[in-house]
Amino acid sequence: MKASPDVLPLPYPPAHAQRESFVRHREAFVAGSDNPRDYLERCLGQIARIEPQLHAFTHLDAESARRAADESVLRYRAGAPLSALDGMPVGIKDIIETRDMPTQMGSPIYAGFQPRRNAACVVALKQAGAVIVGKTVTTEFATGRAGPTCNPFDPRRTPGGSSSGSAAAVGAGLLPAALGTQTLASIIRPASYCGVFGWKPTHGGLSLDGVQPLSATLDHLGVLAQHIDDAWAVATVIALASGAMGALGTLGEPVPAAGAALPEPRPPRRLAILQTAGWPEADAESIAAFANALDGLRAKGVEVLDASDGRVASLERLVLEAVEVAWHIFAWESRWPLRAYFDCGEHLVGERLRELLDAASRTNAAEHAQRLAWREGFRSSVLALSREVDGFVSLASAGPAILGLTQTGSRLFASAWTLLGGPSFSLPLLQSARLPLGLQLMGAPGSDVKMIGIARWLMQAT
Amino acid sequence: MKASPDVLPLPYPPAHAQRESFVRHREAFVAGSDNPRDYLERCLGQIARIEPQLHAFTHLDAESARRAADESVLRYRAGAPLSALDGMPVGIKDIIETRDMPTQMGSPIYAGFQPRRNAACVVALKQAGAVIVGKTVTTEFATGRAGPTCNPFDPRRTPGGSSSGSAAAVGAGLLPAALGTQTLASIIRPASYCGVFGWKPTHGGLSLDGVQPLSATLDHLGVLAQHIDDAWAVATVIALASGAMGALGTLGEPVPAAGAALPEPRPPRRLAILQTAGWPEADAESIAAFANALDGLRAKGVEVLDASDGRVASLERLVLEAVEVAWHIFAWESRWPLRAYFDCGEHLVGERLRELLDAASRTNAAEHAQRLAWREGFRSSVLALSREVDGFVSLASAGPAILGLTQTGSRLFASAWTLLGGPSFSLPLLQSARLPLGLQLMGAPGSDVKMIGIARWLMQAT
Repeated sequence: MKASPDVLPLPYPPAHAQRESFVRHREAFVAGSDNPRDYLERCLGQIARIEPQLHAFTHLDAESARRAADESVLRYRAGAPLSALDGMPVGIKDIIETRDMPTQMGSPIYAGFQPRRNAACVVALKQAGAVIVGKTVTTEFATGRAGPTCNPFDPRRTPGGSSSGSAAAVGAGLLPAALGTQTLASIIRPASYCGVFGWKPTHGGLSLDGVQPLSATLDHLGVLAQHIDDAWAVATVIALASGAMGALGTLGEPVPAAGAALPEPRPPRRLAILQTAGWPEADAESIAAFANALDGLRAKGVEVLDASDGRVASLERLVLEAVEVAWHIFAWESRWPLRAYFDCGEHLVGERLRELLDAASRTNAAEHAQRLAWREGFRSSVLALSREVDGFVSLASAGPAILGLTQTGSRLFASAWTLLGGPSFSLPLLQSARLPLGLQLMGAPGSDVKMIGIARWLMQAT
Repeated sequence: MKASPDVLPLPYPPAHAQRESFVRHREAFVAGSDNPRDYLERCLGQIARIEPQLHAFTHLDAESARRAADESVLRYRAGAPLSALDGMPVGIKDIIETRDMPTQMGSPIYAGFQPRRNAACVVALKQAGAVIVGKTVTTEFATGRAGPTCNPFDPRRTPGGSSSGSAAAVGAGLLPAALGTQTLASIIRPASYCGVFGWKPTHGGLSLDGVQPLSATLDHLGVLAQHIDDAWAVATVIALASGAMGALGTLGEPVPAAGAALPEPRPPRRLAILQTAGWPEADAESIAAFANALDGLRAKGVEVLDASDGRVASLERLVLEAVEVAWHIFAWESRWPLRAYFDCGEHLVGERLRELLDAASRTNAAEHAQRLAWREGFRSSVLALSREVDGFVSLASAGPAILGLTQTGSRLFASAWTLLGGPSFSLPLLQSARLPLGLQLMGAPGSDVKMIGIARWLMQAT
């Protein structure tokens, strides 16, 4: 693949600003005016043009994607597509096991590693007819050294991490959707930086079976997508099909076995602003963009509570504390995989992972138990305030993507809600310094279905 | 390796009937009258003699075991052993990831498969100075086709499954302890058939990170050992070291960070007999052996409640139902790995796994949610009765090992307590037809520490 030297940066907002939903576009597959193979070829064309500079993929398999797309074509011709995402090209973060593509975890320890099975989410996507195009760059084990991916809207900047390749590929328009994971900020932050829709569902909502683990309390599987409707389609296919964690209903409401209808846009009556962890880092233009968006919501009749309300002020203090609690839980619970990787050779593991393991050595099981108990109190507080408000809003990151490719940005805006285990979303509604910036929407654990409705309304209203 | 043709069957009770505890024997390492390398060589000698007929191992690495034992020798010489099991030769069930030995899952899909990390339990054992001797035979993915292992006390009979190799190797005296897993009956049953101590701890008590999953609700890591004291040492090392599930205290009581003292033998005041699921299958000699053991307990002042007590009769009915509930939960939750394996090729997967996946197709998420709710009620009932009794007893299997190597025996005696998530033990206290038979001891979830004390008392008293 050769790229013209100046394909990046892409302009922001992108030429494809009114990004079309795949699940809506597929009506053209049904009608016969387009087909999955042609759709894939357009994606592959964009990949050929942009990937040589973007470095979003660790592995691409155009030929097997073409075979899968051709099978999808036959299904549409026969009037029997498998699901709302039959024919959808998707990318898979490279800490997720794939049977026919290497899974390299962003680590030399896993160079060329070939699992013998697909992760639960990959099984689900393939059974639904999705077209797996490739594996996307992750930071080392989703927490250490950054990969080579750059930001599509400024190649001197990070795409964010750890779901770097998924966010960059979707942001650059190479794919409609990709899978990501979040243990602190690894979906919300790159979604914010790359101008895509990011959704970290309720903890346990999407099966992590076959995904490299870090922390049982904090690990989440989620989706990065150009369009919220497509994220919904991807998530529900996984939730409906996947096994071990798949009690279902974990996304908030019993989902009918036959499929899950996209929730209708739903105007929030009242939202609470959380301006706490990370806000001292936020730049003036980003803060102004956020304030401006809130003014727009108020103008549409949404009541917005801020810290002048004592309940919101109390929650802001908890969020600040949650960031620290999350970090220590992360360090303690990730001891196993980190020790296992260090056993493979100190020189094969990045410095950041050593810091994390050192942090674990400074805490203990009793403190860990206290932190898990603190989390229960935090959840109770959020659930209580959720009876008064329909959701919570904040920035999704302290500002647009930071300069440089070795750091992936601050985790502070996202990690409290990861600890909470409630759904959080980065909505690509803001910009700052002509770069994308996410509006973060958050809900109580189990409120995903409701929050998707609110997110859809916000996307339309803003 | 060549074996004399008649090394099996070994006599039962074994010549090593008063099986010595490794953790007690290691006082000789401390004193210098024995050392880990010599201990290992004795194990390797037994392996060379018996393994060619027993087929307990899928992989043996005598050389790396010798290196590990030699390092242990140096630590004892320096007066600095790492733990109570420094120098203990152990076997690892072959669904548990090992970095320097293949992990083949009892399946052609994983033939020659080499993970790049050690499972959490393996990291913990190695850090404690244990000597990993090899990988032990499992049935296909711990649930399908039986492996080649035979019963050490009658080679025409099964060792039980799915922890077949671990139970057989320990039962034949090749190793003091080995790791097993249980999703329905896979520790308790082979422990019963092979005359070893088996312990399935409270659900979540020992980390399953790096262990091939089947069912999040039912999967347990546990220990098979010649001596109960050694099982305690193995389990606490894993519980103290392992990360993601390792909230600790999950074995019932806060365990001090420095180590966990072996609970003292503790006479039970009152036990309840559960003569329910599986009992119609039990043979007369096995039932008599059980009754005889209970008479012995009564003679020592233990009060024994049976179904003439209405509360026990009620619980027996729940246990009967639990066996069915467990089966359906297993089928539903194992959909992911099974689908992933079938995707590798139908011909590579055994018939039993097809039956399981078919069973999953006949249930659904709503029924699964109902079953999980039923489990909560079952737990409440057991917890309520646990305020009246110190534990529950039953047979560990319907009788001694069944004839043939293709079936691994009935799951009925063990699977209700797997669903419950409470600790269960197979104590090698009975025999029937001159073959081993386990007395099953069960406790409420989280009562492992107390139950180990009771188990120690029972081992001494019977």
